[in-house]
Amino acid sequence: MTRRLRLAMVGGGRGAFIGGVHRMAARLDGCFELVAGALASDPQRAMDSAADLGIRGYPNFAAMLAGERAREDGAEVIAIVTPNHMHHAPAKAALEAGFDVICDKPLALTVEQGEDLAATVARTGRVFILTHNYSGHPMVRQARAMVRAGELGAIRVVQVEYPQDWLSTRLEETGQKQSEWRTDPARAGLGGSLGDLGTHAHHLAEFVTGLGVESVLADVQSFVEGRRVDDNAHLLLRFAGGARGMLWSSQVAPGNENALRLRVYGEKGGLAWSQEHPNQLLHTPLGEAPRVLARAVGALHPAAAHATRIPAGHPEGYLEAFAQIYRDAAEQITARREGRAPDPLSAATPTVEDGLRGMRFVAAAIASARAGGTWTVV
Amino acid sequence: MTRRLRLAMVGGGRGAFIGGVHRMAARLDGCFELVAGALASDPQRAMDSAADLGIRGYPNFAAMLAGERAREDGAEVIAIVTPNHMHHAPAKAALEAGFDVICDKPLALTVEQGEDLAATVARTGRVFILTHNYSGHPMVRQARAMVRAGELGAIRVVQVEYPQDWLSTRLEETGQKQSEWRTDPARAGLGGSLGDLGTHAHHLAEFVTGLGVESVLADVQSFVEGRRVDDNAHLLLRFAGGARGMLWSSQVAPGNENALRLRVYGEKGGLAWSQEHPNQLLHTPLGEAPRVLARAVGALHPAAAHATRIPAGHPEGYLEAFAQIYRDAAEQITARREGRAPDPLSAATPTVEDGLRGMRFVAAAIASARAGGTWTVV
Amino acid sequence: MTRRLRLAMVGGGRGAFIGGVHRMAARLDGCFELVAGALASDPQRAMDSAADLGIRGYPNFAAMLAGERAREDGAEVIAIVTPNHMHHAPAKAALEAGFDVICDKPLALTVEQGEDLAATVARTGRVFILTHNYSGHPMVRQARAMVRAGELGAIRVVQVEYPQDWLSTRLEETGQKQSEWRTDPARAGLGGSLGDLGTHAHHLAEFVTGLGVESVLADVQSFVEGRRVDDNAHLLLRFAGGARGMLWSSQVAPGNENALRLRVYGEKGGLAWSQEHPNQLLHTPLGEAPRVLARAVGALHPAAAHATRIPAGHPEGYLEAFAQIYRDAAEQITARREGRAPDPLSAATPTVEDGLRGMRFVAAAIASARAGGTWTVV
Amino acid sequence: MTRRLRLAMVGGGRGAFIGGVHRMAARLDGCFELVAGALASDPQRAMDSAADLGIRGYPNFAAMLAGERAREDGAEVIAIVTPNHMHHAPAKAALEAGFDVICDKPLALTVEQGEDLAATVARTGRVFILTHNYSGHPMVRQARAMVRAGELGAIRVVQVEYPQDWLSTRLEETGQKQSEWRTDPARAGLGGSLGDLGTHAHHLAEFVTGLGVESVLADVQSFVEGRRVDDNAHLLLRFAGGARGMLWSSQVAPGNENALRLRVYGEKGGLAWSQEHPNQLLHTPLGEAPRVLARAVGALHPAAAHATRIPAGHPEGYLEAFAQIYRDAAEQITARREGRAPDPLSAATPTVEDGLRGMRFVAAAIASARAGGTWTVV
Repeated sequence: MTRRLRLAMVGGGRGAFIGGVHRMAARLDGCFELVAGALASDPQRAMDSAADLGIRGYPNFAAMLAGERAREDGAEVIAIVTPNHMHHAPAKAALEAGFDVICDKPLALTVEQGEDLAATVARTGRVFILTHNYSGHPMVRQARAMVRAGELGAIRVVQVEYPQDWLSTRLEETGQKQSEWRTDPARAGLGGSLGDLGTHAHHLAEFVTGLGVESVLADVQSFVEGRRVDDNAHLLLRFAGGARGMLWSSQVAPGNENALRLRVYGEKGGLAWSQEHPNQLLHTPLGEAPRVLARAVGALHPAAAHATRIPAGHPEGYLEAFAQIYRDAAEQITARREGRAPDPLSAATPTVEDGLRGMRFVAAAIASARAGGTWTVV
Repeated sequence: MTRRLRLAMVGGGRGAFIGGVHRMAARLDGCFELVAGALASDPQRAMDSAADLGIRGYPNFAAMLAGERAREDGAEVIAIVTPNHMHHAPAKAALEAGFDVICDKPLALTVEQGEDLAATVARTGRVFILTHNYSGHPMVRQARAMVRAGELGAIRVVQVEYPQDWLSTRLEETGQKQSEWRTDPARAGLGGSLGDLGTHAHHLAEFVTGLGVESVLADVQSFVEGRRVDDNAHLLLRFAGGARGMLWSSQVAPGNENALRLRVYGEKGGLAWSQEHPNQLLHTPLGEAPRVLARAVGALHPAAAHATRIPAGHPEGYLEAFAQIYRDAAEQITARREGRAPDPLSAATPTVEDGLRGMRFVAAAIASARAGGTWTVV
Repeated sequence: MTRRLRLAMVGGGRGAFIGGVHRMAARLDGCFELVAGALASDPQRAMDSAADLGIRGYPNFAAMLAGERAREDGAEVIAIVTPNHMHHAPAKAALEAGFDVICDKPLALTVEQGEDLAATVARTGRVFILTHNYSGHPMVRQARAMVRAGELGAIRVVQVEYPQDWLSTRLEETGQKQSEWRTDPARAGLGGSLGDLGTHAHHLAEFVTGLGVESVLADVQSFVEGRRVDDNAHLLLRFAGGARGMLWSSQVAPGNENALRLRVYGEKGGLAWSQEHPNQLLHTPLGEAPRVLARAVGALHPAAAHATRIPAGHPEGYLEAFAQIYRDAAEQITARREGRAPDPLSAATPTVEDGLRGMRFVAAAIASARAGGTWTVV
Repeated sequence: MTRRLRLAMVGGGRGAFIGGVHRMAARLDGCFELVAGALASDPQRAMDSAADLGIRGYPNFAAMLAGERAREDGAEVIAIVTPNHMHHAPAKAALEAGFDVICDKPLALTVEQGEDLAATVARTGRVFILTHNYSGHPMVRQARAMVRAGELGAIRVVQVEYPQDWLSTRLEETGQKQSEWRTDPARAGLGGSLGDLGTHAHHLAEFVTGLGVESVLADVQSFVEGRRVDDNAHLLLRFAGGARGMLWSSQVAPGNENALRLRVYGEKGGLAWSQEHPNQLLHTPLGEAPRVLARAVGALHPAAAHATRIPAGHPEGYLEAFAQIYRDAAEQITARREGRAPDPLSAATPTVEDGLRGMRFVAAAIASARAGGTWTVV
């Protein structure tokens, strides 16, 4: 068993979004233990947020790196979950202080910052992981393995798109925090939809095909009046080796929540994957019936099994639902101890009475069948 | 913040399936900390399995209950993840020893055992949670809330089914552990598909409609020769208040991995939910266009929000993929420290080079667009 | 080439539904020519309806049979498209007068009438075709051929359902003609949803599996207050040879327009077909990835090809859209001749201007590509 | 009732594809009667093909135009269903001879030919209809009507694609007729996938949005070695009024039979339509749950009803299946008369025995239910 690595976090305090996701992801497999954080740019909010989580708090990342470095049981890995403009400084400092780094995407605000980080990683010899999270899906890894194994033949066409709709109106004027920094070139960088979504799409296309994008031709728009970065982009792609592609990123396409979708076509077949239904991978071998690959069926590549937590027949999402039962159980148990009423919403959790109903139901069903099919009271 | 509850586990040792799922579910929200286990019926395997997990091991559940009760920092909650015939004894003992209990389904081997547990829960005043995990999905909670709010009118028809295919052949003869005990009446109970799947379907139908099944009429089959419990069952249902239903459970329906599906129809509309695509709930108000409800769109009931971890626009399954990045990161980091090569499959994790490619890609796209749409080298 | 058969019709006059469908179906392949009709029970409406269609009109079916029999160029085949209670008399009379018969389903009002018709067919030696139209889909024929060829192994489980929602309220009280006779036991027969939908589902299940239903167990409801026939039915089925099944028919399931769906599971695999997406047949061989069969892919059975009009790559529905262009063309042409404005809705039909736009579009695209990718005015 | 228009056809003889489709489309609504044809470029094959259909045959289109013009009962309308290079000459001659014309797409071989045809139409005052058949779908007309009514607000983004896979290999070298002329610039024109598929996609996008494509930027490929026209094309589009779009046409995307798909996004909502599931139109109003529009639900625009043949609850494709029953009936009847065995494949058609089984089935079900739910022999 791998020992749990001690993790500290930059960003992700009260009101943040992706920080909480990083924490759940870090917990799920029990590989990390969060021990410290510089969770907000405001020192007081940083300390309060750490207290919320019951971890060591620091007013800023520099103090945290120093403090954790000094402890015997200090953090070993730094997760950076701040807005884009605050990736470079803490990441560089963490690397130079000898920490490994897990950083949210996109890497940085500018190519120059990115190059500096890459150089720092090379110089320090630390591990640097970027959370292009969609590459963690079993069926994405399966797709990549299939392409590598030559099952599609030479790749010809790549279609990748990542439309959303949440910026269809001028949300950044309403005080909504996420939209404010994501539409501010100083904090988000050159790209709006391109930086936030296009980088995911670009990474996914290269990740699965194993082919680098060599040149790009772009038509980029800001449809919402007054918006300072792009909210929609249409790109033509040319890949190494001759494959061609199209990439669409959008934040103004109503009805698209998070519709990242990749299609790859080669001489011998095609693959299609959509993150909204991540458990299926459509494989279309030329001249044969399309096949719906899933984790449970047939012989998948080891790369897919490597990214799978739950056995055949249980889709992704299963774990969250299962965890909900545990979360509601914790609330029920804690409330009982504290002598207070539990959150009424946690009462949906099944109890012994539900179990007893189930037992009676099965017994009645078996009795009905044994009687040759008669209505039997449960 | 709720303090983490200390959890001990009965069952779930080497080679088990659902125990690992319980552990991940317990970890995800950080509400529980696993501290001890009696993880297998064989004492040596029990101790070895605990060592694997780095927790206190016990040779059997009785020893564990005694040992943990005696410690200041002992477990507070017992999770029972054994085969069905081993639910009753440890659950009863745990309750009587003052522990709260989280128990896998179905509740027990017989109605009598179930009644005894219900009585024990009532007598001891402990919390007892049964992991009918499908009730933890946000869209299932949304469905239940909609029915309760009268949005479907009086319920008329309930269609629920839970087909699988993994027992289409006589798998229990091959030494496969899961199939052995699940087709053994002494360990699984009266019901085969009924106990394993029918109880989930039954709970889900009652959970969402809020209506109890009053009587049942069954036709139950064992299609695979020599099978000792049912592997397929067709049930007619009559619910309190006059609704009628059908329930199908099967382990011999090829192509169905885990196809739990519920459809509920009332005077004013219908709802359909499938656990294979758990993020969508189809709402069909009578005389209007069907609507695809998801966590991100429109005003959901608080019950759905209560069961949601990730903001609008990100589907369930997202967390597992995200966690994969963290897991691969842990492997990369640990291997570097241990001076060994990391598992090659973990190399799929994105690094700084991927991030730099992304930065260059966005910059090239913006440059192309600014030049009026020209091919630009990345 | 088969000579067109001369067809006469009983029922299907003004305000009828299924008569028009029969006429389009008869025309599509050019095998029939409609020459006469007794199109309504009211003599005047019968004659007016015939005039609408430009065919020989008769006040009732007896007159029609006599009249057509007397003509050298008289009808050879009688199509019966009346409500259920008016199938037996004209069908029997037609058979006895030497006509072949095409009759809408269900066959008759009672089993006795049905037996009498079967005996009449046997005695007269005429052809009698019942329009269980869903058996005409290529993918249904493919499914049947696959089962016959043993590709599923011995059949174990059959799930068939046919829900609708149009009778969720007491529509028959509103004067709506279709609902009036379909909920009147004197005109529709014993079964409401069972007769209208259950017979289709029953036929489809037997058609595809080649297995007869030997016994049935039913729970039948009339959910809408005051309704005189069933509007929902839950049936358990036992087939010859040991297969078991469930059948659900409903007219009160909101959101279901016409959701006939069949699933068949055997020892070696399963098949699923839905008439709302009739061009796909899901084949799930045990232990392999599910395959989506369509007319264009791989080697289908001749039975599927026999029922296919349009080559690979064009779905059903294509013909109606194509026909719409012709219908709008006819309106444009006729209006021009008659010196009147055409129906404005027919103006959506593409004309030479649309074609020219297309030519220019292609030319501009090619020019842009040849210039290395530049914006080119269309 | 509109009188049937007399139709003559150029092209569409033995071995042709689209000619048969035109004939079925022309027959379906009974608006046209095919009376004559110059069905092939080879005079003998032209005459033989006409004999097959039982219509007046001509060795070439010039003879046909002259012959039909001279007859009292001669054709009034000319349908042109030849390869692209043979559209201009017969269309122009027909128009000048006073016929109305229905012509397959694309309009002609070159922009110059197209402009000449447009001028000829203007000069002669004849009706000229181009069969951009996808614009005939009810849900496409509904989409167009919704955009016109402002239900999407100002249009921002248009995504249209039309991938196929049938030219993934060098099929034109195998003697396959369709691929030969479609990859021959002399017969197909400048565009390969662009001319065959791109023109459909272009028309559909303009048809639904009501916006003209003003400029285009293209990257065009011939992936299959030796292919003389494009088999894949990636286009960026700029529409009048500021909307932007992408268009993908392909003949080398394995798994895509005929996957024309349009998505339109405006300020207030989006629409998505796919010709492989033509009965549904996804409407995504901003901030509300997506709605699945179909012909049966809610209040559709008159434009959709105008293009609908079959009442609510019956999908497109229904008519072909229904027609299959009639076609098989014709075979059964004709064979009986001719004293020969019918085509065995036509035996799948339901007969009186099937109807009787259905009657018995319903009667048994009702009897079972009346007995309180007992197994009842059918």
